[in-house]
Amino acid sequence: MSTVTIIGTGNMGQAIAGIVTKGGNTAELLGSGDADKPVTGEIVVLAVPYPSVAQIIAERGEQLAGRVVVDITNPLNFETFDSLVVPADGSAAAEIAAQLPNSRVLKAFNTNFAGTLASGQVGGAVPTTVLVAGDDADAKAALIGVVSAGGVSALDSGALSRARELESIGFLQLTLAAQEKISWTGGFGVVN
Amino acid sequence: MSTVTIIGTGNMGQAIAGIVTKGGNTAELLGSGDADKPVTGEIVVLAVPYPSVAQIIAERGEQLAGRVVVDITNPLNFETFDSLVVPADGSAAAEIAAQLPNSRVLKAFNTNFAGTLASGQVGGAVPTTVLVAGDDADAKAALIGVVSAGGVSALDSGALSRARELESIGFLQLTLAAQEKISWTGGFGVVN
Repeated sequence: MSTVTIIGTGNMGQAIAGIVTKGGNTAELLGSGDADKPVTGEIVVLAVPYPSVAQIIAERGEQLAGRVVVDITNPLNFETFDSLVVPADGSAAAEIAAQLPNSRVLKAFNTNFAGTLASGQVGGAVPTTVLVAGDDADAKAALIGVVSAGGVSALDSGALSRARELESIGFLQLTLAAQEKISWTGGFGVVN
Repeated sequence: MSTVTIIGTGNMGQAIAGIVTKGGNTAELLGSGDADKPVTGEIVVLAVPYPSVAQIIAERGEQLAGRVVVDITNPLNFETFDSLVVPADGSAAAEIAAQLPNSRVLKAFNTNFAGTLASGQVGGAVPTTVLVAGDDADAKAALIGVVSAGGVSALDSGALSRARELESIGFLQLTLAAQEKISWTGGFGVVN
């Protein structure tokens, strides 16, 4: 039994909480009104848009020490929808890891639309797979275990440096959906 | 009826030629022994590994002027399998476009394993989709038309700057297959 704290109660946070509880683990959902509630999960998912991460780290950075912290963001420039706001040779996950040196940071869920996490299917055709990147094998195994227990596949996609590629996938997928070239319940599925 | 010249007779070149001919268009396959045969296609696919592109441009750069040139490469560092050899804020396609200012350069096919182009299926589950990026709408439409005629979906994925994201997808997909986390007949499928 793991406890997973999910900071952010939007559609991504709710979909991730659904997977956690479906697998028999405990989801602790914290919203913007819960700033005084401490984080208790061994795994903490930052289920907020990229611009909100800085505030969470400012408020809760010390609480996150010793925990597995999961970055799900796609750091798009939402004005242009044509680039990311993180350095080309970096990633949001790398920035977050640098700011949380006492946490084990993972990238995950950013290549999954919320609808595909909730349904467990990409476009009704392919089982949803969560791509997970990180440098700590135990942290990755813990998250993959929680996701798998919830009935959704999870795939170790390499070191945290691969977050750059995961963010590229998330970025392209968002641009295609925003242009209605794919649906918000579809996207990139992983097929073996 | 279009003629598509495919430079490179490996498994990618052959799979692409199969799609071209299946659609009733003409495929001209040129191998390494055909350096003296001129390019005749309106569309020219550079179906060679990234390190071989420079030589083709040196030999055939003038012949490529006025044509649609399709870059299919994944410019991996094959020693480390941990990075690309092009600048983080660029792409192989951007480099090729800079070297061929009189051609209309597209990125395509680099997110498709040859087996999925030959079978038309990703993992036997999802119809194969070719992601196409480029700055010239007519050039993209011409390639998408040829691919679609051959029974394979093709999706306009944006400007040539999106080649960076397509190369990230190709890179990650190759690392997952090399580690046997996905199969060479599977990978990322596009589901609507």
